[in-house]
Amino acid sequence: MSRFTHLFAGGSLNRLSVLRSNPGFIASSTQSPHTRYLALRNLDPLLTAAARGQSIAWLSYADVKDALSAGAFHVFLGVDESDAGTDEFTSERKGGVVVIKGRSYWAIDLTKGAVYDSVLDKTDKEFESKNYSFAPMRGALSSLPWEEESAILAQGRSVIDWNVRNQFCPACGKKTESGEAGYKRFCPRPAPGEATDGAEADKTARCLSLTGVNNFQYPRTDPVVIIAVTHPTDPNKILLGRQARFPPEMFTCVAGFMEPGETIEEACRREVHEETGIKVGQVAYHSSQPWPFPNSVMIGCIGQGVSTEVNLIDEELEDARWFTREQARAAIAVHHDQNAKNDAPDAIKVPPPYAIAHQLVKAWLEGFGPVPSKM
Amino acid sequence: MSRFTHLFAGGSLNRLSVLRSNPGFIASSTQSPHTRYLALRNLDPLLTAAARGQSIAWLSYADVKDALSAGAFHVFLGVDESDAGTDEFTSERKGGVVVIKGRSYWAIDLTKGAVYDSVLDKTDKEFESKNYSFAPMRGALSSLPWEEESAILAQGRSVIDWNVRNQFCPACGKKTESGEAGYKRFCPRPAPGEATDGAEADKTARCLSLTGVNNFQYPRTDPVVIIAVTHPTDPNKILLGRQARFPPEMFTCVAGFMEPGETIEEACRREVHEETGIKVGQVAYHSSQPWPFPNSVMIGCIGQGVSTEVNLIDEELEDARWFTREQARAAIAVHHDQNAKNDAPDAIKVPPPYAIAHQLVKAWLEGFGPVPSKM
Repeated sequence: MSRFTHLFAGGSLNRLSVLRSNPGFIASSTQSPHTRYLALRNLDPLLTAAARGQSIAWLSYADVKDALSAGAFHVFLGVDESDAGTDEFTSERKGGVVVIKGRSYWAIDLTKGAVYDSVLDKTDKEFESKNYSFAPMRGALSSLPWEEESAILAQGRSVIDWNVRNQFCPACGKKTESGEAGYKRFCPRPAPGEATDGAEADKTARCLSLTGVNNFQYPRTDPVVIIAVTHPTDPNKILLGRQARFPPEMFTCVAGFMEPGETIEEACRREVHEETGIKVGQVAYHSSQPWPFPNSVMIGCIGQGVSTEVNLIDEELEDARWFTREQARAAIAVHHDQNAKNDAPDAIKVPPPYAIAHQLVKAWLEGFGPVPSKM
Repeated sequence: MSRFTHLFAGGSLNRLSVLRSNPGFIASSTQSPHTRYLALRNLDPLLTAAARGQSIAWLSYADVKDALSAGAFHVFLGVDESDAGTDEFTSERKGGVVVIKGRSYWAIDLTKGAVYDSVLDKTDKEFESKNYSFAPMRGALSSLPWEEESAILAQGRSVIDWNVRNQFCPACGKKTESGEAGYKRFCPRPAPGEATDGAEADKTARCLSLTGVNNFQYPRTDPVVIIAVTHPTDPNKILLGRQARFPPEMFTCVAGFMEPGETIEEACRREVHEETGIKVGQVAYHSSQPWPFPNSVMIGCIGQGVSTEVNLIDEELEDARWFTREQARAAIAVHHDQNAKNDAPDAIKVPPPYAIAHQLVKAWLEGFGPVPSKM
């Protein structure tokens, strides 16, 4: 990996979970003139078109003040402590006073159709005059800013999405309330005395979310394994597959959601077998990547194939094949060198560098794997 | 790791997700006399007390037939293909007929309070006569069967739990229905024509769960990072912490749920900093472990500390300290060698071998780490 950082990774905000329930901190942090807001509408971030690629169109408290007053939902992202000359926040703790210096970052949901449409009409005119626009992230991955900004986009989009799509308690169907600056949604507890007030109170008393470990009160992150598979006997070959909806000749790594009761390695073996019929032995973890569509973390691995005959068992893929190091190298190279050629008769395409699949194939070419490379 | 397998890992059932929606397969698999059922009540598995440790009290179709007829919820676990002489299932696919040979495994929820209490009274008497009993898993981890059986316990408990606690659509509050043999819960779609029938139908039409990627329709698995931290300058020291509720002198690795927009390595660094104030540089993934309380996967890492002064920032821990290799070795040894001593004045305790924390400390003692060990 050396110093490479995936798109959506590399964030360095201090998330300060310890201050998410502190009303004093929340008030100063939201209202500081130094605070920066990432705005989203229908999960699309507000971006400013720069000469070379896009960047986040940061809003200030003044820009979002009316939307906040009108009830716009907002979540705390963290404090950039490298910006130490901006704000100073203090918090009394058992062990003493904690002092945090830096600039606060929040994400705010400016989706239309809520109570504050008149407010949005006003801000939208300002955005237009500044050449800001809400842009779909999924279709613009190649032009998103990397490192710090993309990590903020991933965090902001995932946390807003989780709140928007989880408005009801999955255990009892009640409307939930937001807490901890956007990082908790809880089933309203019965008021004192209410628990004996008849049917409705009984239902509240029975809500499973009020006892035990209640993971669904907290943001959901779905672990997804993604794996490049090496050939059992030919160190020059790697297994890649394609779905019918892909562009022609595009092949990538096998991927899938982890299931309950699996290790990372077991999930890799199951997914590869389901999609390609290939059996995998040793699995080496390579790296991971946040993937905010909507709330995944991609866990990238390279595994050693121990069989060779492809069988598209679950028919999720339309094709899976063993490709040579030369095919993979040419497919990777065109993304990094504008003079590189990829026009051999058996040429394939692979995803661009922002995708962990690209980095896994590249890592394999560079010698990373579950067994020492013979190259 | 050599050939070590964590408790709850090492399962080898073919989960056959491709057949979960196949009614013919479901019927033959549930009703075969060879099929084995893991029963749970309030998430406690039915176990049989053996002379040395417990094992799963497997039930047959005959044992659970009445409960199934009465509506007992059940989820498919997979087929053990090493038991090839039992059943044979075939499935027509685009690419041809798939033949699966082996014994099916299901988990069934026999929790009281549902419609089939009279049925349960009968089965409970049979369980009693066979010395079977429902036992809390969490408190009996030391005596659970490892490898294949513990992996089935993890899968069965997690999938049943997810279904029990997710009865309502988090997007719209509607009662959800179970599908895919226990691996999906979906918001009922409007019947043809219903979508224009007024307010209720409009609400259905608006349910976010009917468009886009809807992760909450599928079982939730929470990635949790757990990390042993090495000292920046003294290769003989490791950072461990303790919560106030732990037994005296018990110390373990820092752990916490991953948050949206983080890599595994970033989550490790954040958790260690929040709980101990220590900054972590390089992080090496070691192994992972399913943890069915309720639906976690523990992602075990060893990280290189780059600072030394402890500060219990979020006050989740009551103490965190650097311990020597000798202290760690003595604490590990007593779990593996009944003649080992751990009675030095500065002796500490560490969790038992079923916990990944134990295996991480052991791995560090054996030389695994983010930098080559100097020992």
